[in-house]
Amino acid sequence: MAEANRRVVVRAYPADLPGPEHFTIETAPVPVPAEGQALVRTVWLGMDPFPRMQLTDRPGGPPAIPLGSVMIGRGVARVVESRRPDLTAGDWVVCDPGWQDYALYTAAETPRKLDPDAAPPSAALGLLGPSGLTAYFTLSAKAGVKAGETVVVTAAAGSVGSAACQIARTLGARVVGIAGGAEQIAFLTHRLRVDAAVDWQAEPDLAAALRAACPDGIHAALDTVGGATHDAIMANIAVGGRVVMAGFISGYGERKPYGNPHAIIFRRATLMGFLLADHMADAPAALDRLAGWHRAGSLELFENLTIGLENAPAAFAGLFRSPPPGKQLVRVEP
Amino acid sequence: MAEANRRVVVRAYPADLPGPEHFTIETAPVPVPAEGQALVRTVWLGMDPFPRMQLTDRPGGPPAIPLGSVMIGRGVARVVESRRPDLTAGDWVVCDPGWQDYALYTAAETPRKLDPDAAPPSAALGLLGPSGLTAYFTLSAKAGVKAGETVVVTAAAGSVGSAACQIARTLGARVVGIAGGAEQIAFLTHRLRVDAAVDWQAEPDLAAALRAACPDGIHAALDTVGGATHDAIMANIAVGGRVVMAGFISGYGERKPYGNPHAIIFRRATLMGFLLADHMADAPAALDRLAGWHRAGSLELFENLTIGLENAPAAFAGLFRSPPPGKQLVRVEP
Repeated sequence: MAEANRRVVVRAYPADLPGPEHFTIETAPVPVPAEGQALVRTVWLGMDPFPRMQLTDRPGGPPAIPLGSVMIGRGVARVVESRRPDLTAGDWVVCDPGWQDYALYTAAETPRKLDPDAAPPSAALGLLGPSGLTAYFTLSAKAGVKAGETVVVTAAAGSVGSAACQIARTLGARVVGIAGGAEQIAFLTHRLRVDAAVDWQAEPDLAAALRAACPDGIHAALDTVGGATHDAIMANIAVGGRVVMAGFISGYGERKPYGNPHAIIFRRATLMGFLLADHMADAPAALDRLAGWHRAGSLELFENLTIGLENAPAAFAGLFRSPPPGKQLVRVEP
Repeated sequence: MAEANRRVVVRAYPADLPGPEHFTIETAPVPVPAEGQALVRTVWLGMDPFPRMQLTDRPGGPPAIPLGSVMIGRGVARVVESRRPDLTAGDWVVCDPGWQDYALYTAAETPRKLDPDAAPPSAALGLLGPSGLTAYFTLSAKAGVKAGETVVVTAAAGSVGSAACQIARTLGARVVGIAGGAEQIAFLTHRLRVDAAVDWQAEPDLAAALRAACPDGIHAALDTVGGATHDAIMANIAVGGRVVMAGFISGYGERKPYGNPHAIIFRRATLMGFLLADHMADAPAALDRLAGWHRAGSLELFENLTIGLENAPAAFAGLFRSPPPGKQLVRVEP
């Protein structure tokens, strides 16, 4: 066992985009598990944009992460030492270690263990985890996507987006992905096999580009971006179209309003907010379905790996720029 | 029969609020019905804010009303001369005469005749017509209002709003109305018998006033106003709240964006657009239900009458300022 536990703590709240300057790395003793706890070693951390909303002292959102405390984050870890009956040294487990080498597993719930022979453990942080579930529930339960419909996916090269493009395709929809830059567009076209890919960085008029890609209008959309992208979607929404808002990465730093009441009324469109936490009772069945699609080859795993805990801030910051395609992971255990 | 037909025509498109200066009155011969047509005499015109959206040459909305043509409008009329088998001189009929003394009834559909002994014919322009149907379908079919929920109604002293407050109360909801000025607030409190009335003209902070009136949050809202009123509703939306957008009188002149993606996501709220035209197949059953509530005393008829076709532009303009409570009608036949 290592003698020290490296921890990435929050140094300052970003005014706009987060960057490495908002974090600092410090060293602490490896914690010792009490009765009912287990010590785990972080293997992978999953990078998610959502915690950006907790890096603020502005009220009204989810609870802020206090300055000086370890940055929160979901991970896949291995049990080092267990003082609880439901975990054994060597077990793979999905948990919330935060951005540190070692953490105590203290949750009251039964741990979610992973079988490394059934699927790559890291998949539990993306396609067979929150990203896949978010994509699946938004498209099926919320938007009710039907075969033959045109579905637009924002941030389509990202973790949720790449899952959503593949799930929408598997549901029989015509899939139009929005992403930024030639690398992402090539990924959408050749790896995700979308029906059309729209490059928001290259298009001077995103609404017009979407109109060309969606001649029948947009029947359903998964919008994790908001802002001008949302407006371009609403400008092309079909009558009865459904837009699920599962994030607004364009506006995490500020709360600028946007929207198109004209389109909502005249196209009788529906906007729905989504939080994965509401759907956890249905998660086991959904994960089974996603794992089945993965085994059958309909859903591929796309991961983008950054090596080293010390590079987690840069990997997180990259989510808000033009990140490489797929789920962004940080490999913590050497 | 009068020798001349007075017609109010559109002279100019308003840049912001419509006023009498955007219309002019002219005189034409009384039209002569051809085979299959009937000549009708306009008795009442119903004033609706919706056609404001057609007083523009900006693309993207409903069809514009051409400059120089008669202003469109729904009315109750009596048949003067009929050359079609389904109408007889003296019949009361709901139709779209536009803002003129006489019009030809040319519709292919069976006319909707009114029995003046069953209900006041003018009710067909409001409570037992489009306003009542809009209020009923938005609250029941779209928002799914349940007994015990808190329902917010915007423009609550208006035609749709006054119907909605009474319908929500009849459905067992706790009703909070938003209106402007002491006269409207007194009307809400004493005539519509809402549970709380919020005066947007008097409240420096509309969101705070709504919070005080809706301590459990807003479960459902009928929003015909938009803009800052919409933002105040979204700031207080309950988890799982539903907002039906059936108009945006605050923004008919311009399409300024507003909205609260933060609330949509974190409260898992739903915004839905509504157009009455989608629900006409269910209108006969809904009108029966509304008429039954009216006979039983649950729904009262509130009308505000302006005398004279020449005053229609001022009555229409008043809808966009702080109009007197109830459905705004113009009595055309002396």
